[in-house]
Amino acid sequence: MIEVEVKAKIDDFKEMEEKLENIGAVKSKTEFQEDIYFASPIVDFAETDEALRIRTTNNNTFITYKGPKLNDKAKTRKEVEMTIENSEKAKDIFTEIGFMEVRTVRKNRQYYTYENFEISLDDVEGLNPYMEIEIALDDSEDYSQAQDEIFKLFEKLGITDGFERTSYLELLENLNTE
Amino acid sequence: MIEVEVKAKIDDFKEMEEKLENIGAVKSKTEFQEDIYFASPIVDFAETDEALRIRTTNNNTFITYKGPKLNDKAKTRKEVEMTIENSEKAKDIFTEIGFMEVRTVRKNRQYYTYENFEISLDDVEGLNPYMEIEIALDDSEDYSQAQDEIFKLFEKLGITDGFERTSYLELLENLNTE
Repeated sequence: MIEVEVKAKIDDFKEMEEKLENIGAVKSKTEFQEDIYFASPIVDFAETDEALRIRTTNNNTFITYKGPKLNDKAKTRKEVEMTIENSEKAKDIFTEIGFMEVRTVRKNRQYYTYENFEISLDDVEGLNPYMEIEIALDDSEDYSQAQDEIFKLFEKLGITDGFERTSYLELLENLNTE
Repeated sequence: MIEVEVKAKIDDFKEMEEKLENIGAVKSKTEFQEDIYFASPIVDFAETDEALRIRTTNNNTFITYKGPKLNDKAKTRKEVEMTIENSEKAKDIFTEIGFMEVRTVRKNRQYYTYENFEISLDDVEGLNPYMEIEIALDDSEDYSQAQDEIFKLFEKLGITDGFERTSYLELLENLNTE
């Protein structure tokens, strides 16, 4: 699967929720997500723009691998996500085979759906409010159109700047080194 | 979890099945198991005596990590096994993070249970008949007693030699290099 994903700072969750409802976006699930990120023993994932994490949500646990970004504007990248039995065992296996826990990112995410978009209002512990808009594509589909559509939707919601390509993980890491 | 496991060559499955039934062992499930083994980019698992594999059985898929052997006589080692969604995604993730597929080991395994033992009659593609006897222990339990019990059970079944510490994977690898 390829995910095309753009995120931007927003001023206020309440205001954005109203805008989303005005255009007809449908509020779906709210999730608490805890993501444990790992560092590789052979490459610097921050350099290669990859990510390996264990995500625990209200009901499920996943291993997610995200590949390097395929272009500069949006975060277009390969994503493999697999349901697993539990987080502890996965942590144990990754640690045994040489991966190191880097940081845990916790957030409350409010999902909205609109046409073929998945929209998230992200309240990340330690960061300001963000909104993410994503389109999932098959590996063979062209992603430049999807990207254009995402930026048009941001415009429709009154957002024309404050776009952020840096991941929540890196934003939090940068906070600590400043 | 710690598994204490000993395997030995046997002459004939039929004959051993009779012996097992004579001592009161209970035939349980029969399983076709397909194990995809991976090589690490940072250590030689053959040297460190570790293993990382994806096991697909009739009904389930697992990731299994096996730690270095803790002693010389039996294969006493840490084991972490976790149910996962499917084999393809796990293969994709392991490959992306630098692991290499080494070999697939396929076998039909007939399980028996007897007291606290798990006994397997293993018909591995490309190898002669083997029987494995295993006891699972908590991490803190002493394994030397478990080991003695296993060897006593082998004796009870008429097996006093032909013990093999080499894994099926390595036995198959060795066949190829001979």
